[in-house]
Amino acid sequence: MRGRAPLAAPAQKLRVAATRRACASCVALALTLLPLPAFAAGSGVVGENLLWLAMILMAARLFAPLAQRLGFPAVLGELLLGVALGNLGLLGVHYFDAVAADPIIAFLAELGVIVLLLQIGLETRLGDLVKVGGKAALVGSVGIALPFMLGAWLVGPFLMPGKTDNAYLFLGATLAATSVGITGRVFRDLGRLGMAEARIVLGAAVIDDVLGLVILAVVSSLVQMGTVSVGEVAWIIAEAVLFLGGSIVIGRAIAPHSSRWLARLDSGHSMLFAQVLATGLFLAWLAHAIGLAPIIGAFAAGLLFEPVFLNAFETPKVVQEIEPLLPAESRSGLSEKIRAVLSRHSGHQHEHMIEPIGYFFVPVFFVLTGMQVDLKTLADPQLVLIALGITAAAVVGKLAAGFAAGRGHNPWVVGWGMVPRGEVGLIFAMVGKQLGVMSEAMFSVIVLMVILTTLVTPPVLTALLRRQG
Amino acid sequence: MRGRAPLAAPAQKLRVAATRRACASCVALALTLLPLPAFAAGSGVVGENLLWLAMILMAARLFAPLAQRLGFPAVLGELLLGVALGNLGLLGVHYFDAVAADPIIAFLAELGVIVLLLQIGLETRLGDLVKVGGKAALVGSVGIALPFMLGAWLVGPFLMPGKTDNAYLFLGATLAATSVGITGRVFRDLGRLGMAEARIVLGAAVIDDVLGLVILAVVSSLVQMGTVSVGEVAWIIAEAVLFLGGSIVIGRAIAPHSSRWLARLDSGHSMLFAQVLATGLFLAWLAHAIGLAPIIGAFAAGLLFEPVFLNAFETPKVVQEIEPLLPAESRSGLSEKIRAVLSRHSGHQHEHMIEPIGYFFVPVFFVLTGMQVDLKTLADPQLVLIALGITAAAVVGKLAAGFAAGRGHNPWVVGWGMVPRGEVGLIFAMVGKQLGVMSEAMFSVIVLMVILTTLVTPPVLTALLRRQG
Repeated sequence: MRGRAPLAAPAQKLRVAATRRACASCVALALTLLPLPAFAAGSGVVGENLLWLAMILMAARLFAPLAQRLGFPAVLGELLLGVALGNLGLLGVHYFDAVAADPIIAFLAELGVIVLLLQIGLETRLGDLVKVGGKAALVGSVGIALPFMLGAWLVGPFLMPGKTDNAYLFLGATLAATSVGITGRVFRDLGRLGMAEARIVLGAAVIDDVLGLVILAVVSSLVQMGTVSVGEVAWIIAEAVLFLGGSIVIGRAIAPHSSRWLARLDSGHSMLFAQVLATGLFLAWLAHAIGLAPIIGAFAAGLLFEPVFLNAFETPKVVQEIEPLLPAESRSGLSEKIRAVLSRHSGHQHEHMIEPIGYFFVPVFFVLTGMQVDLKTLADPQLVLIALGITAAAVVGKLAAGFAAGRGHNPWVVGWGMVPRGEVGLIFAMVGKQLGVMSEAMFSVIVLMVILTTLVTPPVLTALLRRQG
Repeated sequence: MRGRAPLAAPAQKLRVAATRRACASCVALALTLLPLPAFAAGSGVVGENLLWLAMILMAARLFAPLAQRLGFPAVLGELLLGVALGNLGLLGVHYFDAVAADPIIAFLAELGVIVLLLQIGLETRLGDLVKVGGKAALVGSVGIALPFMLGAWLVGPFLMPGKTDNAYLFLGATLAATSVGITGRVFRDLGRLGMAEARIVLGAAVIDDVLGLVILAVVSSLVQMGTVSVGEVAWIIAEAVLFLGGSIVIGRAIAPHSSRWLARLDSGHSMLFAQVLATGLFLAWLAHAIGLAPIIGAFAAGLLFEPVFLNAFETPKVVQEIEPLLPAESRSGLSEKIRAVLSRHSGHQHEHMIEPIGYFFVPVFFVLTGMQVDLKTLADPQLVLIALGITAAAVVGKLAAGFAAGRGHNPWVVGWGMVPRGEVGLIFAMVGKQLGVMSEAMFSVIVLMVILTTLVTPPVLTALLRRQG
């Protein structure tokens, strides 16, 4: 590295100003090349981020198959990788501490979970979701209410006596959460997004997400002001319903026309890709702007697009090359079979194109989620025991919700599908910590609960699905 | 939006702290949901970035076909879109000013140009590049030296008298630059990366990039300290040569083995994708860390991977589904032809997977580059005339370099291929401005020269290639 800056302050100032006004890469490059010590800021944040991204991308791909060989889902590999990286500080390695604090990496993580929910939405047929809507609503509501009550009024006061009422309310809220990200990814990794139980879980998870946010708002309001405004709660619910309903109804009315119009301008697959991804980003932004989770917007965007809406675009290149080779009139078995494969491939073109974006950014989200886990606070064996108790309540509450799905559905599959708490639980706990309600110990307990619910679920779910056949 | 913050400062602080410690999306969401005015920071930077990305992604796809219908390359549509967005301030619309200043968008732009050069590297065979190495070196050297001399000692003093010697030197440096990004993309958009002239231009552009940085370092040193250290210049050149040679030689020795090893762990296409992209990001970081342009590292990474290295990975799913349908023993024309298409498709699997990443981020780079253009400073007709003169010198200098390619190559194609100055010229000018050497007027002249060289090249190049057949 060319001469490190003895005059760090002006160099820093100049670097920040430069970054703001120009393509950061080139300026950073130009500045590092200037043979002046004060300029040679060396590898800036931009450069390090490239290395981190490369490392997360590669490490996630290495950890995922290792986790899978042990019977765990790929997502667990990424979470544990994050836990390892986030706790290297315990071994005196503090290099990765900056990763967790970097806003650019945080944004890419957000992009990752948005892309994941967009993918799950694209792979889910809205009609299928509507069909199980009533059951999903019931499962979601029970899955919110029961764990909340268990946490706030039974297990919390019993296992961790002496805390404030508000602390128990927050514990209940974190138990009520469902991570639609992790839930969806577990089903996706198992290739079971198509089954009725998966659709119930997915619908319930969306409802959980909305209700969970309501609970968080209510609890936070109680903590901060001692009261709850009914109007506020009603408004949150109304907003969520309006946004979900409105975006899907309006979007589905527009999508076939916009697709035709865009395809007339450019029928290439880049336009197809841009339309789907841009819609996902736009609705994620819109959801965020009105106070909902961006991932709900991304999921809604995915539900918008039926493959048939996208027929105006060109088929993939491999299809374009093979199709003319097939004899036009032939009804031979071979040609028919090949045509079927090609048509299936064409129908999923948009999903195939978004997949690499997912490979790139989804692991950033899960690794960063894992990095939130602080192993130091788990050195206390008593805490671990309490965490096991809380985890049991977390599992029981969601399993009971599974039975709300009613006859004809495997209640255990639905219940276990709701068990992973994931990043949502962590975030709720973090808000509680920031409000000064939740102690470090309780936060650690919740973190362990999140890890356990995520770790226990996949092997159990796999076994259940195998028995069901 | 729920209650805007009257207590902006603490909210801001809390928001920043939260972002640093957690997945930004979820915290931002949780915070916006808390029914507390001081918390409800509304749509933060994270949220707005989603909207900007959606808009850039979509607008670039809309502008590209419009530009192409006028006979211009897609990249020009993106650049002009950037110019338009960056100058909406003239009409009183200041919404987009924040885009140009956002470090997250700047990073995504950097990612974009890195991915572009990785793609160009992947589509270029190293052997083909080596074959034209000598000619590329000659073209690159002449293409640096001649425009530099023209700018610094002839056209600069003649058209813009009364400036300092250092200003002319900087003008020369910006004329010497070649944008390997724009050059490569023009050839790529025209589907001509395979021709000998394209390879000469690509090789020369890499050499230009290195030599251009040397010139920038020399000129900056002259401006700041009045002298140049020969050792420093030699060191920059040595580093560049060592990096390029070393990374390619070592990389090509490792790549076949690492591919086999990785495929044994997971032979899916996600691993293939991760290996190629992570290598691109890693070498981009390495190049940056030793003071070179990140894009040179990305290009080197692309050159590393021969499709044959990646044979250990699974073929694409559509190939896996069609191949077993084809009769094993049949040497019929149909099966053979389909097999040929499938095999070609498999060989380019890694390129296909990186393409969506390019669609997503490459436009961010070109739009952001366009946003650097300040139309206000071009209201002066005298400046525009001067810019035309400078542009003429810029074109003549590179065209002359085209003749250095020697017999058997179309000198005009090579020469025009080197003409676009792109972001590299802008960056050089920006460094000059920051050093206080270059006036606003001279900066504007260079900006116009960059736009003109990029705008004039593609129709001319297209006409030349059509005549050549």
